Amino acid sequence: MAIRLDHRASDFEAAFAAFLTTKREVSEDVDLAVRRIIADVRERGDAALAEYTLKWDKLDLSSTSMTVTAEEVDAAIEAVPSEVLGALKVAAVRIEAHHARQLPKDDIYTDAMGVGLGSRWTPIDAVGLYVPGGTASYPSSVLMNALPAKVAGVPRVVMVVPALAGAINPAVLAAARMAGVSEIHRIGGAQAIAALAYGTATIAPVAKIMGPGNAFVAAAKRQVFGTVGIDMIAGPSEVLVIADKDNDPDWIAADLLAQAEHDPGAQSILVTDDADLADAVERAVERQLTTLPRAETARSSWRDFGAIILVEDLASAPDLANRIAAEHVELALADADAMIPQIRNAGAIFIGRYTPEVIGDYVGGSNHVLPTARSARFSSGLGVLDYMKRTSILRLGPDELRDLGPAAIALARAEGLEAHARSVAIRLNLGDAG
Amino acid sequence: MAIRLDHRASDFEAAFAAFLTTKREVSEDVDLAVRRIIADVRERGDAALAEYTLKWDKLDLSSTSMTVTAEEVDAAIEAVPSEVLGALKVAAVRIEAHHARQLPKDDIYTDAMGVGLGSRWTPIDAVGLYVPGGTASYPSSVLMNALPAKVAGVPRVVMVVPALAGAINPAVLAAARMAGVSEIHRIGGAQAIAALAYGTATIAPVAKIMGPGNAFVAAAKRQVFGTVGIDMIAGPSEVLVIADKDNDPDWIAADLLAQAEHDPGAQSILVTDDADLADAVERAVERQLTTLPRAETARSSWRDFGAIILVEDLASAPDLANRIAAEHVELALADADAMIPQIRNAGAIFIGRYTPEVIGDYVGGSNHVLPTARSARFSSGLGVLDYMKRTSILRLGPDELRDLGPAAIALARAEGLEAHARSVAIRLNLGDAG
Repeated sequence: MAIRLDHRASDFEAAFAAFLTTKREVSEDVDLAVRRIIADVRERGDAALAEYTLKWDKLDLSSTSMTVTAEEVDAAIEAVPSEVLGALKVAAVRIEAHHARQLPKDDIYTDAMGVGLGSRWTPIDAVGLYVPGGTASYPSSVLMNALPAKVAGVPRVVMVVPALAGAINPAVLAAARMAGVSEIHRIGGAQAIAALAYGTATIAPVAKIMGPGNAFVAAAKRQVFGTVGIDMIAGPSEVLVIADKDNDPDWIAADLLAQAEHDPGAQSILVTDDADLADAVERAVERQLTTLPRAETARSSWRDFGAIILVEDLASAPDLANRIAAEHVELALADADAMIPQIRNAGAIFIGRYTPEVIGDYVGGSNHVLPTARSARFSSGLGVLDYMKRTSILRLGPDELRDLGPAAIALARAEGLEAHARSVAIRLNLGDAG
Repeated sequence: MAIRLDHRASDFEAAFAAFLTTKREVSEDVDLAVRRIIADVRERGDAALAEYTLKWDKLDLSSTSMTVTAEEVDAAIEAVPSEVLGALKVAAVRIEAHHARQLPKDDIYTDAMGVGLGSRWTPIDAVGLYVPGGTASYPSSVLMNALPAKVAGVPRVVMVVPALAGAINPAVLAAARMAGVSEIHRIGGAQAIAALAYGTATIAPVAKIMGPGNAFVAAAKRQVFGTVGIDMIAGPSEVLVIADKDNDPDWIAADLLAQAEHDPGAQSILVTDDADLADAVERAVERQLTTLPRAETARSSWRDFGAIILVEDLASAPDLANRIAAEHVELALADADAMIPQIRNAGAIFIGRYTPEVIGDYVGGSNHVLPTARSARFSSGLGVLDYMKRTSILRLGPDELRDLGPAAIALARAEGLEAHARSVAIRLNLGDAG
């Protein structure tokens, strides 16, 4: 049973503020253990990887090569049902096409004063992609993390995936092939992150590490940050559905449960102006839970973090949505378009009754790696720019330096940085550099 | 005396690898102290701010308002020498014009299948800007951090700056006015970061915090990350000068010293193919040091971290530069243009003999907040995108859902996420949702 908040209630503001700050994750303190693992991999390289892999993944790297061969990937692709392979292909084509539109353009120009300026984008040299093992080993996530790298032109994409007792989900290998992954190594955990960051004899280091993982992986990513770049640390998934009265309660309930089944910490929120719809959705959730394979997870999420917010008027919904800043926002409204410009803080917006969020998880074309835990207030979903960096370019000749130099000298001296001033002055014969 | 590396020497690779991993910062362990300060500000708000401000900044906030008034800014502007005010204006106009070109465009379109897709950019609602007190209180940094926010359309930019014994650098206040800062509060340290992240009675919370600071400020930014966004944690500054024989050694020496005077941890590197130039630059550095006000800092930086790398051919320089991934790269070459495409990892490139890096610090127009400590391998300088976020948009009608839905259902079932499958199937009358 989700909580109910009534926008007209006198205690709404306090209840809503408390709701916003509810923590949905227990952060395990694994920092010390992770620090030891990283130090060990830095020191002993492949030997340390082999030990940890034997211990945790029950895989002996002295008899199985760490690196997955092209032939193994070929064989995995044969093992994937053709319907799934076809669906992956549909997804890959759409994701690549959408992301291609995000490719930034260089901007090199000369301004009115004659100064050359520019922004030049280049792909990162090498990127690591962590893929979890077990049930959270999602081929869709491989596409979402690796295809933007391909579009960006990253020359080397290194995937690591733990092979629990030797097994890797064949669909994950198929997705890696489709997405142009260049190397695959069967290692996981903090040790895999350490190998990507610092390198071993088998794995050359990368410059940035992407992809989701458990508490050890997240802690390892935080610890190697600086040595390499990392993507965001993703939290449990969220959906906020804004629905008017003309919705089928079963459709809305299905969307709320699609989030809830991810994780006990996932959050599903319905905002509506119709108390009858709210009641009907709640009943539909309970009914659908009875036949859901992951009912235990979904029920726990809905009970602990689910919410129905009743508003007197849907005009109040955007302000609430902007404060919640959900990863996914569905607008199940007759005139959804009118509300789009008012939603500022959201990872992704799904428009109308026929765009369930799940389409965005797989085949819409946009990325499913999106900001969680209210971080849509200040960050964006994964995209091509995350696999590139911008270098600025400046070019002056003697004339431009004569025009601009005195202002630079004045500011340098105002800031007490005389060597800065001299570096300009000496070129203009304005000052003695000693 | 900087170290010398000779590219032709047999031990070059080992020496260069060691050079690359040299740490130039001692990270003070202030985490626990900072954790207490943040908890205290969250609990006691303005009262805690007042206590810390009295203790560390020697400023009594019971007799002086925490918030700087518009009249105080007016008075500060009167106190700034007109030459400095004019130079700030030159810088502000150029920085704003350059950054305006970085404004992203929304991309909303319908694909061949009829699916509506889009990327929509919006400014962050509120941004905090930390400005250090004392000698590191740089008006140029205020322009560089606040003007991209103005260009992005951030409606609320909140500056915090410690007023040591009540004093704030008037040029900092003048720069804040020029850059459209909306609020200024005279607080600093970890307590100011806590106030920006969590809010107090006087300061409403922001969504992202930018700007440099000491070890306490850096630790506080790391700790509040997640609750708010943060920019990069900047390290000591760096310059890499690639110079051919036809350079005035005094010019190159001046550029090396302009970096070195920033911080004992700053790093200045010269790569050249001319041993005579290398010797002459080294002598010029020593000569110029004798008359430099910040000679002690510059000497310490040059001695501990400065380097001259002699190459047999400047064609080797780009590979070294890409491995060093310096914040600033100067190309003091006859044909600098030819080398630009080969430099992939650099915060900013300065082209030709008349573009000293200092121009980029102040008046070039590009941002001087750039990636340090080799992070140009995976990150970019500060820009307008850092003050915005992208929301993706997806829109399907019944026909598009019928076309794309089956692939989504297939992938959801392959991933064991039945509620995901049902959220699509129920809209297509393909499946029972219970």
